[in-house]
Amino acid sequence: MIKLQLQKGKDKRVVEGHPWVYDNEIDKVHGSYDNGDIVDIYDWKDKFIGRGYINDNSKIRVRILTRKQEEINREFFKKRINDAWEYRKRLVDTASCRVVFGEADFIPGLIVDKFEDYLSIQTLSLGIEKYKDMIVEILDEILNPKGIYERNDVQIRELEGMEQKKGFLKGPFDTKVEITENEVKMLVDIENGQKTGYFLDQRENRAALKPLVSNARVLDTFTHTGGFALHAAHYGARDVIAVDISDHAAEYVAANAALNGLQGKVHVVLANVFDILKEYQQKGEKFDVVILDPPAFCKSKSALKGAYRGYKEINLRAMKIINPGGFLISCSCSHYMYPEIFQKMLLEAAKDAKKTLRIIESRVQAKDHPIVSAYNESLYLKCVIMQVL
Amino acid sequence: MIKLQLQKGKDKRVVEGHPWVYDNEIDKVHGSYDNGDIVDIYDWKDKFIGRGYINDNSKIRVRILTRKQEEINREFFKKRINDAWEYRKRLVDTASCRVVFGEADFIPGLIVDKFEDYLSIQTLSLGIEKYKDMIVEILDEILNPKGIYERNDVQIRELEGMEQKKGFLKGPFDTKVEITENEVKMLVDIENGQKTGYFLDQRENRAALKPLVSNARVLDTFTHTGGFALHAAHYGARDVIAVDISDHAAEYVAANAALNGLQGKVHVVLANVFDILKEYQQKGEKFDVVILDPPAFCKSKSALKGAYRGYKEINLRAMKIINPGGFLISCSCSHYMYPEIFQKMLLEAAKDAKKTLRIIESRVQAKDHPIVSAYNESLYLKCVIMQVL
Repeated sequence: MIKLQLQKGKDKRVVEGHPWVYDNEIDKVHGSYDNGDIVDIYDWKDKFIGRGYINDNSKIRVRILTRKQEEINREFFKKRINDAWEYRKRLVDTASCRVVFGEADFIPGLIVDKFEDYLSIQTLSLGIEKYKDMIVEILDEILNPKGIYERNDVQIRELEGMEQKKGFLKGPFDTKVEITENEVKMLVDIENGQKTGYFLDQRENRAALKPLVSNARVLDTFTHTGGFALHAAHYGARDVIAVDISDHAAEYVAANAALNGLQGKVHVVLANVFDILKEYQQKGEKFDVVILDPPAFCKSKSALKGAYRGYKEINLRAMKIINPGGFLISCSCSHYMYPEIFQKMLLEAAKDAKKTLRIIESRVQAKDHPIVSAYNESLYLKCVIMQVL
Repeated sequence: MIKLQLQKGKDKRVVEGHPWVYDNEIDKVHGSYDNGDIVDIYDWKDKFIGRGYINDNSKIRVRILTRKQEEINREFFKKRINDAWEYRKRLVDTASCRVVFGEADFIPGLIVDKFEDYLSIQTLSLGIEKYKDMIVEILDEILNPKGIYERNDVQIRELEGMEQKKGFLKGPFDTKVEITENEVKMLVDIENGQKTGYFLDQRENRAALKPLVSNARVLDTFTHTGGFALHAAHYGARDVIAVDISDHAAEYVAANAALNGLQGKVHVVLANVFDILKEYQQKGEKFDVVILDPPAFCKSKSALKGAYRGYKEINLRAMKIINPGGFLISCSCSHYMYPEIFQKMLLEAAKDAKKTLRIIESRVQAKDHPIVSAYNESLYLKCVIMQVL
């Protein structure tokens, strides 16, 4: 087995359980390898740390699969996928859910989402791509889906030295699938929707709207295919305005509203959210509940400062257009916007808006997107539910 | 109105919404007052901040009731209590719940818990004690309980210059009340139970056991009257060991087990939790689920270091006696053990125990114990649910 030894003083994070070895942490390489090969990681004192796959094209040189000196084979992946599936069966509604969440399920680079009888998968690194056929076979054995689709049309694959592609791995089938999220029907476009087709990570946060929206006037921003907006309408909102800048999203919101018999209640507005929040504020429009679920404003640590300003602006404006005693549901899916920074931003926004906040819930991503303590990056979604006074 | 002016540079916290004015923050006093009187607080530039009650016997010299120049009268308290009640009706099961949570409901010093048809109240500061009769009248109007009991047998009242006392404010009635928490029946001893009779703040955390305990061997430590233990048994645990050092608690666990027909499943062990965890570890005893719900190990910031060691010890030992893939539910009700410190302690314990943690939920106190953003002290209970791998 190829052996990589880490530099003295640069092995701590990995020893403590983080699954990534960066290029600049490696001291010596014993043996030669091809990208995608399995290698062993040792600390500077020559003690075994773990085994994973390597790729010179990535700054994350090695992603660790196991902390044991065990063979990486069919049996290995079958146990990992089985453990992941048992975890979901115990903790979430598995009709539609994330089945494998990469590093957080100890299978770096692999994403598997289940939408009713169909799976949508991504193999995001070269090391896992090499096992794709085997993994698809195992998924077929364990979950027995009617179809499997590959959504490998993501740029990150090119950085890893692979091509982008998408298509059927088991099928073909109609890639427009109707799922039920909580009690709301949603159309998922496995072929062309974002990422694997739909964001399952907000499911529990959408359910948390239930006690807040009865007879309310609701504003759902960055609505995408209408997840929060439709939940609000379903849970009894009087009137829901769903804002997004994309035509495609707007079409889906309308279709999803019709699917739930909520056409009359959900109104799509095509607009830039920053602009429309400003406009509502200037016009004196008021809402009982506002939902902010923006895309990641910062994808790197260096972008945090600008992102912070962006988050603060939309939150401050939202607080100003909420009726006293109304509710703000504010999300961030930027990992680098750590919970304590997000909280600080909310307090500053409240101060500037001259509002008092009561924190009803500080939520994160749904349980089928688990958080591994030593792998900080696995906590990415924040969803704070507040009363604005 | 008596007017207190704050020192330059010492008014920021209060201006930003914190309800407490400390003795060393006050610059000038205009007028004379008696302890318990209503006074106005101004910043150093002579701008009105808020209105509250004063007590020279407390380091917290003034507790702010309102940020408006409004009269503190029956109407004021009626609106506050009504708002608090509406908040609960919207967000929680109100059969038994906390109705008023002091500062977090903008009524400093007042605690009101509802146990089915009865209320148990505390007036913890002199300023609110003066309105006790009025408040009891208002509670009677809004909630129409069959009885109201005063649990003012708390030492803090002596520091405020009041006597300790307990007794009926509306009644008498049988102070042993049966409540239903989630789906579990619990006996509450309003007269002699801890604080107001029972800790309602763990209700949602106890419900969160449901997916974790089926057919499990469960250890519930610091069980008190058996809240977590009985929930575990009710949700399908195979066998539950409930540990507490107090005879009185143990009797209640047994009575509560019988009440739910779970006698055969819940076994009370009278022991010191630190000792018994060590003993289990030495004997090689294993559990599928361990619950740690200790009393506050630190009641002041200065006690944090020792408390940290205590929390780490029980968590480390618990992690070692959990079967791989099992679950740890770890709580802390010490405010000063901030969520990020608690998290850090858990990671260190996991490192020392050579375990990997998957964080399933990072929970706090139940929603009827709200958290006010500018009043940091209102966040006190942490409950982290983890898978130990």
